[in-house]
Amino acid sequence: LLKNTDFKKSLDKNEYEKEMENLSAKLSTLQLTIKEKKIPVVVVVEGWGASGKGTHIAQLVNPLDPRFFSVCSIKPGEKLSAKPYLCPFWEQTPERGRISIFAKSWHRIILKIDSNKWKLPDKARETFYNDVNAFERQLTADGAVVVKFFLHISKEEQCRRFEKLESNPATEWRVNDKDWKQNARYAKYMEMFDDMLDKTNDIPWTIVETDNSNYATVKILSTFVAKIEDAIEKQSNEKPAKPSAPTESRTLIRNESRTSSVSDVAYKEQLADYQQKIRLLGHKLHIKKRSVVIVYEGWDAAGKGGNIKRLTKELDPRSYVVIPVGAPTEKELSHHYLWRFFAMMPADGNFSIFDRSWYGRVLVERVEELTPVHVWQRAYQEINEMEAHLAANGVIIFKFWLDIDRDEQLRRFKSRQTDPFKQYKITEEDWRNRERWDCYENAIEEMLAKTNMPHAPWTVVASNKKKFARLKVLETVVKTLESEL
Amino acid sequence: LLKNTDFKKSLDKNEYEKEMENLSAKLSTLQLTIKEKKIPVVVVVEGWGASGKGTHIAQLVNPLDPRFFSVCSIKPGEKLSAKPYLCPFWEQTPERGRISIFAKSWHRIILKIDSNKWKLPDKARETFYNDVNAFERQLTADGAVVVKFFLHISKEEQCRRFEKLESNPATEWRVNDKDWKQNARYAKYMEMFDDMLDKTNDIPWTIVETDNSNYATVKILSTFVAKIEDAIEKQSNEKPAKPSAPTESRTLIRNESRTSSVSDVAYKEQLADYQQKIRLLGHKLHIKKRSVVIVYEGWDAAGKGGNIKRLTKELDPRSYVVIPVGAPTEKELSHHYLWRFFAMMPADGNFSIFDRSWYGRVLVERVEELTPVHVWQRAYQEINEMEAHLAANGVIIFKFWLDIDRDEQLRRFKSRQTDPFKQYKITEEDWRNRERWDCYENAIEEMLAKTNMPHAPWTVVASNKKKFARLKVLETVVKTLESEL
Repeated sequence: LLKNTDFKKSLDKNEYEKEMENLSAKLSTLQLTIKEKKIPVVVVVEGWGASGKGTHIAQLVNPLDPRFFSVCSIKPGEKLSAKPYLCPFWEQTPERGRISIFAKSWHRIILKIDSNKWKLPDKARETFYNDVNAFERQLTADGAVVVKFFLHISKEEQCRRFEKLESNPATEWRVNDKDWKQNARYAKYMEMFDDMLDKTNDIPWTIVETDNSNYATVKILSTFVAKIEDAIEKQSNEKPAKPSAPTESRTLIRNESRTSSVSDVAYKEQLADYQQKIRLLGHKLHIKKRSVVIVYEGWDAAGKGGNIKRLTKELDPRSYVVIPVGAPTEKELSHHYLWRFFAMMPADGNFSIFDRSWYGRVLVERVEELTPVHVWQRAYQEINEMEAHLAANGVIIFKFWLDIDRDEQLRRFKSRQTDPFKQYKITEEDWRNRERWDCYENAIEEMLAKTNMPHAPWTVVASNKKKFARLKVLETVVKTLESEL
Repeated sequence: LLKNTDFKKSLDKNEYEKEMENLSAKLSTLQLTIKEKKIPVVVVVEGWGASGKGTHIAQLVNPLDPRFFSVCSIKPGEKLSAKPYLCPFWEQTPERGRISIFAKSWHRIILKIDSNKWKLPDKARETFYNDVNAFERQLTADGAVVVKFFLHISKEEQCRRFEKLESNPATEWRVNDKDWKQNARYAKYMEMFDDMLDKTNDIPWTIVETDNSNYATVKILSTFVAKIEDAIEKQSNEKPAKPSAPTESRTLIRNESRTSSVSDVAYKEQLADYQQKIRLLGHKLHIKKRSVVIVYEGWDAAGKGGNIKRLTKELDPRSYVVIPVGAPTEKELSHHYLWRFFAMMPADGNFSIFDRSWYGRVLVERVEELTPVHVWQRAYQEINEMEAHLAANGVIIFKFWLDIDRDEQLRRFKSRQTDPFKQYKITEEDWRNRERWDCYENAIEEMLAKTNMPHAPWTVVASNKKKFARLKVLETVVKTLESEL
């Protein structure tokens, strides 16, 4: 993509001013359409040192109302090291109707790693590209327009600009040894950039020749305008997707009978033993800079809360967070549905425990028909990709389905209604959900079948007997952590 | 507070278990009351190394539903260095009805600084204590219950615990040289702790003797229960505060006539000049690790948007963010009103530009009677304290009141209504606000008089002529930054 670039392309002052007037007017109108049509827009600006990222972004945002855009510049190393690397970028993806401009993007980390002379193994590189492409595809599937610019510059012009920056005391700090290294090893870097661009071109890059700054600005603005106009046109021509055929029912994976139990004596003894073990494993997690995600899903009244409590009893309270997941807020709804979860992922050494999770997409949202069929069907793949990304970044993932039978649920509902301290736990909604038991069973089966991955396996926990269920979860966590750490 | 502590206090196993059963039951009930009465609860747990912060917090949260609390452990140095130090703590303050437990608190920074042998100058120390006491008072005034524990330990017991931790390979990493230094210089540290506790005792500390762990746990839980019960009782006895007498009208501070103007030629020339200057000052800001807060307030249609645009035209888009401030969301309403602003404060080297701001409290909220009189009256002091905190942390603060007269506003409203690209900018609300011009004038005058501080002065900008107003703002920013940097 980068070779044989014609860096001579230029625009004289008159042409430039005429074009800019025209494009600026279009942009101010377009931003209102973006807002009105609730399109989220993601702009990536990557490129060589001194290719003018700052200046060109300034030109792009200049006609825009600051209420409708934000510029994100996430410094690698600041957050990237402690959480899976896509997390901070996910957090900055725009609400519907807004524009997020990434001055440093998710493509950066691979360049950073490679240019530090530590050549990434092919396998890791492939994982990286898969994650990046999946991320961009997911945003696009959710209605976002993703516009990617790579600012290219010739070796000679880059050298001139570094010299110019260095000659001014106010700007000399902007040039460092790494920049000069990039200029000196220009051909090597170009190869690296080219490889990255080639492998992440599913959502296509626009290469911008920046030797002539006027030409570059106009190319960026006109490409942006064209891509947005294109997306708006597509959106208005879009026909509602046909719902796919209902999926076949499978047999519910169940390791044990729902009524497996344990004696009180054995419970007390094993519980204390596992809790001590998990406490020490928590320390080890910290030392080894790994982190843990635990997903709790299950029937209403299956005992998630009490189970979580036993799991965390002896853990250092500074090392874990329990995240109760309810219906999304207005703000969360205006983002991709995975957005809110990425913000809650654990940093190194920590546990994030989800009391319900992203699986709501293929459970309650499916059964209650809150989400169109083709959208929740897409979610299985999105979820698998997200979990794969976490796992590839060292997160150890547990997913528990707390399984009780219909009679046991009824018993518990009734008991909650009579206990004044538990009344708050039972609502009309619980009774409504119960009526749809069969629909839920279908959804659960499909979920277990489609998202049971080696790096993120489901454990179905027989939970009619709460004590058995608690030990089962603790045992699973302890055994896996012992082998992983 | 720390001297002459009796470390012998203890509880035997039976007493302990009896007390704990009782306290745990009380806590599970209390958390529901906290939620129901919408009380925000802040718990601080500070103390010596190895005094058992983790263990004791674990005991406190054990009876609680994880949906109602979170444990915050903000590592100093991570975020503290780049933003005013209270920012990350403000961000973690609880919503009404929730409990935030701070395992590392805002008191920590002074201990950190002092124990690094760099004795804080008395003046800086005083500023620090003022900020901390103001923060806690503000939370309390907003209805929060603030419970502060200091975990005390004897020199001998601390030494024993360090040795025990070191003897286990799973925990030895938890003891480092600094810990041993603390033990070795126990008396010196005690003096430092004592001073800090004494100076921040407006909201009183509870000293917890931790040599006997059972005794400590019971003391923490019972103090917590008592303080919450006390607050609930107070709340139900509280009579609505009498509204204070309406404040007298003052003369509007106005440096120039609202109609000051500038020739087109002079405008063009000066604008370009200032924009170049501010661009370079932006670089300097970065080098000197300072940051800038700019507040725009003004009459509707005073030209805030266009003014901001000229200010940011040549700034590096990665160095500033424009924050449009509208009515608070549901989530924001469930926090102290300053909460959302603290989250938006600039990191070193950056600008945060507020398009409307925290002054809404004493403008729209006062005039529209959205907030009780005694609450917005309290806000002048709260705002001054917040800005003083920012200034003391190196933030350069600008506050602009964009001032137009009634006729000019009418002209602009009418022109917006006929321009299809500006129609979105004018709403019914604007017309309603206009009817209350006199009430707003009163509120503005009082605001300017009460919050015009040396470190955060107001500049009233004559804005009937937009070009004049833009130059005035740019000039003010450029001149002040030139003298500050």
